[in-house]
Amino acid sequence: MAAVLPTPPRVLLFDVFGTVVDWHGSIVAEMAHLYPEVDGDAFAVAWREGYRPAMARVTSGELGWTKVDDLHRMILDDILPRFGLESMPSTERRELNRVWHRLAPWPDAIEGLSLLKRRHTICTLSNGNIGLLTNMAKQAGLPWDCVLSAEVFRAYKPDPVVYRGAAEVFDLAPSDVMLVAAHQDDLAAARACGLQTAYIERPLEFGSRRPKAVSPDPANTLHASDLMDLANQLQ
Amino acid sequence: MAAVLPTPPRVLLFDVFGTVVDWHGSIVAEMAHLYPEVDGDAFAVAWREGYRPAMARVTSGELGWTKVDDLHRMILDDILPRFGLESMPSTERRELNRVWHRLAPWPDAIEGLSLLKRRHTICTLSNGNIGLLTNMAKQAGLPWDCVLSAEVFRAYKPDPVVYRGAAEVFDLAPSDVMLVAAHQDDLAAARACGLQTAYIERPLEFGSRRPKAVSPDPANTLHASDLMDLANQLQ
Repeated sequence: MAAVLPTPPRVLLFDVFGTVVDWHGSIVAEMAHLYPEVDGDAFAVAWREGYRPAMARVTSGELGWTKVDDLHRMILDDILPRFGLESMPSTERRELNRVWHRLAPWPDAIEGLSLLKRRHTICTLSNGNIGLLTNMAKQAGLPWDCVLSAEVFRAYKPDPVVYRGAAEVFDLAPSDVMLVAAHQDDLAAARACGLQTAYIERPLEFGSRRPKAVSPDPANTLHASDLMDLANQLQ
Repeated sequence: MAAVLPTPPRVLLFDVFGTVVDWHGSIVAEMAHLYPEVDGDAFAVAWREGYRPAMARVTSGELGWTKVDDLHRMILDDILPRFGLESMPSTERRELNRVWHRLAPWPDAIEGLSLLKRRHTICTLSNGNIGLLTNMAKQAGLPWDCVLSAEVFRAYKPDPVVYRGAAEVFDLAPSDVMLVAAHQDDLAAARACGLQTAYIERPLEFGSRRPKAVSPDPANTLHASDLMDLANQLQ
């Protein structure tokens, strides 16, 4: 599909969990290693399901500003009993919670990002905290030019403050910036702020038992099967 | 000198202007190209001299939060008449102001940072804004794991909020973090917050007409002639 871009984006902002790294597969693999008796697939999904409600508690003001590391830990503490793991000691909980720092990239991610980095500034725009994203990048070899996070703006996506703030960081108009994500709601919120948007198909984000619909939304500037495809389309 | 480190630092935070990049030489070179009739050495020093007073206006509350890009522009507008350049059009001022995004690294910086990156997380901790630091890194090839800036904390060094905040970003005790800088006052402020400190000799920071004293302060954890030397000492 030969897309006509409004103007080539100077900065590409990337959603990370699910878009660049495979949180589901990484948590399943870690659980299979640590607790083979537990249904790792259900565990990963339960952990992730607590994510939006936890951020909503911050956005509503019920909780003060809380990093995703701490939200992940609250959710973990909450779900462990459901999986018969309520006796897990706190040092082990802390270590397991760091699995989010060790998520594996999708197979196309490093090569795709490296290609995109040649012509664009590539930057995270994730609700994950800066330390988490930096540790992940170092472990996985993700070649970010810059690590931007909700933590910088003290607001979680889809708050417009985050998308607009990211464009302001680079002293660019929102239309000179593109959000790249595997989630239509994230892209819709960015588009409402004037950003260009690229959807990435990640049909296995929730595992092979729960294939995700990845049909195109014509409202997006681009629709790509993966980050290599995005790099080809942006050339 | 075989230093005995308290514990090897997990994260190295770098001051940037003067420590990693040669602001004086870069501005002199740009002015020699654009305005050979102007004393580039005096111009560079005048521009930099306005930096601390400008940040002090933010810290005192006289100015609201203002990025270094905007402070640099205010100082530039202020000094241009002194150099007979008061008629410079605003598009040209904007372009010249971006020289701070194009500063050249000291000759040892890229190799030194690349070595340090093997064992440590390497991160900026500069008063420069995130966009400036990211553009500079991309242009110069500085291989940061993370770009941290006063902009993240909305406070300028030497405010303790910046040093403590950087350790908190990585969920580390201040003593697990080291500030690397060519300025003793920056290091002293970091040390007061519990960080380890490494001084880097940059005798030509202000140009060859103004050699800078670079004698060791025993209060620092390490004293290095450049970033290669620091990498050797940290091995």
